[in-house]
Amino acid sequence: MENFSDGVMAIAITLLAVELKVPHLVAQSLSGSISEVVPYIPSLLTFILSFGTIAIFWVNHHQLTQHMHAIRRRTTWANMLFLFFQALIPFASIVLTANISNPLALLGYSLTLFGGSVSFVILRFTIHPKGSLSGSSIRRSFMGPLVYLLAAIISPISVWATYALLVIPPIYYFLPKPSHDRDED
Amino acid sequence: MENFSDGVMAIAITLLAVELKVPHLVAQSLSGSISEVVPYIPSLLTFILSFGTIAIFWVNHHQLTQHMHAIRRRTTWANMLFLFFQALIPFASIVLTANISNPLALLGYSLTLFGGSVSFVILRFTIHPKGSLSGSSIRRSFMGPLVYLLAAIISPISVWATYALLVIPPIYYFLPKPSHDRDED
Amino acid sequence: MENFSDGVMAIAITLLAVELKVPHLVAQSLSGSISEVVPYIPSLLTFILSFGTIAIFWVNHHQLTQHMHAIRRRTTWANMLFLFFQALIPFASIVLTANISNPLALLGYSLTLFGGSVSFVILRFTIHPKGSLSGSSIRRSFMGPLVYLLAAIISPISVWATYALLVIPPIYYFLPKPSHDRDED
Amino acid sequence: MENFSDGVMAIAITLLAVELKVPHLVAQSLSGSISEVVPYIPSLLTFILSFGTIAIFWVNHHQLTQHMHAIRRRTTWANMLFLFFQALIPFASIVLTANISNPLALLGYSLTLFGGSVSFVILRFTIHPKGSLSGSSIRRSFMGPLVYLLAAIISPISVWATYALLVIPPIYYFLPKPSHDRDED
Repeated sequence: MENFSDGVMAIAITLLAVELKVPHLVAQSLSGSISEVVPYIPSLLTFILSFGTIAIFWVNHHQLTQHMHAIRRRTTWANMLFLFFQALIPFASIVLTANISNPLALLGYSLTLFGGSVSFVILRFTIHPKGSLSGSSIRRSFMGPLVYLLAAIISPISVWATYALLVIPPIYYFLPKPSHDRDED
Repeated sequence: MENFSDGVMAIAITLLAVELKVPHLVAQSLSGSISEVVPYIPSLLTFILSFGTIAIFWVNHHQLTQHMHAIRRRTTWANMLFLFFQALIPFASIVLTANISNPLALLGYSLTLFGGSVSFVILRFTIHPKGSLSGSSIRRSFMGPLVYLLAAIISPISVWATYALLVIPPIYYFLPKPSHDRDED
Repeated sequence: MENFSDGVMAIAITLLAVELKVPHLVAQSLSGSISEVVPYIPSLLTFILSFGTIAIFWVNHHQLTQHMHAIRRRTTWANMLFLFFQALIPFASIVLTANISNPLALLGYSLTLFGGSVSFVILRFTIHPKGSLSGSSIRRSFMGPLVYLLAAIISPISVWATYALLVIPPIYYFLPKPSHDRDED
Repeated sequence: MENFSDGVMAIAITLLAVELKVPHLVAQSLSGSISEVVPYIPSLLTFILSFGTIAIFWVNHHQLTQHMHAIRRRTTWANMLFLFFQALIPFASIVLTANISNPLALLGYSLTLFGGSVSFVILRFTIHPKGSLSGSSIRRSFMGPLVYLLAAIISPISVWATYALLVIPPIYYFLPKPSHDRDED
């Protein structure tokens, strides 16, 4: 299962960049080319955001599953649901790139990440039954779904607030855990 | 072999979404964008169907091959035939997406899944000789080929009946096996 | 190394189909659609040829490398050269699909497979020094390069003879080895 | 981690060729086709350059990480930064192919490889603390970043000098290390 999951996430994270739109530059000077390339900068930022998000998903997923030996049916399917959203991220990211300030594209992107983080929480509970997790760890788990849900709700109202929210989870999970929580997974 | 098969199926399942057509939205409001996106919904449903189908193929394939140690020549080639159809699924799915109610596109899609499920049965018999499988397990194996063959036959007659048939195998194999059959693979 | 090689070949074999041109059918009847799809049949045959060729390369590569433990520098680079041609096959195949009876497209395709089979022979000799291989096994090794070289030479003269030659190696290597030769790798 | 990294680099190296522009040849003769194909030769050279570069990155990365057992947080993230640039290489390569003599495309390509080689040096220091590396090995490590930085600086001035610089690192790292340095990794 780890093998297959690694494959899906490696492909998803690598396709992010390959699917970016290729600029065909007319100017031959550096300064002329730079002004031609300016409209492509948001795509690049979207790529960085999506890359960071999948990277975080991968790190968390890897920590969760690397010590598993016996895999139960429900874990397999929770993992498949998780991979479903991982496989959707490049597409949601490309759509967002093509419609960078469109509320629906942002809603779709937010919902895809919401689905990814909710399915990760589900996967986690199929592996560690609820009683075996500390309170702070459970709170930590629910941060992603909460912020992505908020982003989805706010997307029709403010494009910038939505982007601001979408940046939070990768940064939050990138920061090290408080030490009393670290020995758990 | 497991490594290579996992790779092919991970790529096939991830490419499904990436190859979906990207909408370029003109409307900037949410409601205007939604009406622009409506024609893309069938593509998304096709994606979900194909994802579910490959997921089921992967789970069954994984259960079949994970405890194998010695691999015989004929198993290698039966597996290669199986991977041939797995690699065809994204293409068949894209063609269906581009021709969502065309009988030939549906026929091609049904035949690809038929080929996948038949080659899986062949693979299974190269691993477990016929005598070692219970009657219910053999019946279970033949369900996929049968339904996909029926879908192929019905595709020129009714688009909706074909889609209804195509949805059956992923749901059937997703449901847990009856318990007396479970200890086998 | 096995892991990385499996990855490259799994991607190459899966991309073959995904990169095929998608027909957009106008007719809604089965018979009308079939006549629209006829021009796409050569693409599908090219796909089958390329799939069979990569499959054979993978099986032979896998047999060669699965029992290796220590890897020397020269083996790494011979393998990289081999993977270079594997990664080129999907592109050469797409170019051939787009120019199905063009002598240069056929020449390019033949040379790519020639490069693949020559680099496989080189890889083989870096692993098994010449003295350790039987005469029939060495002859068997040189069959691929020879036929592909012949195909390259003949491509400007006859399209059909070239295709006929290109079909030979996958069939030849698919057939089981004569038994006195089998214990070797 | 090795698994995921292998996946990303295998995909990046395989996509390089697949994303090349497909020529649609009008001439049916070999000589006529050759003159039509001439404009595509720079793309092919760019592909070879990028393939060689990723191949070198992979070999060095593999040597660095294959004997690691415990992986620390900072190593995971240094590796993720490294993979970020690996995943960017195919895109930077496609952009360069589409704008083969444009200074900005060359600058972008040079900076991507600069990022890749700097992040590799960072990754190396998270694994081997500075004191444990010999002087010549450290010099060797800094060669890549230095040459790529120089290429980036020179790209607006001379296209040819930039290409000449970009060819140096793959050749340099391909050549065997001086023997007194070899026992280290």
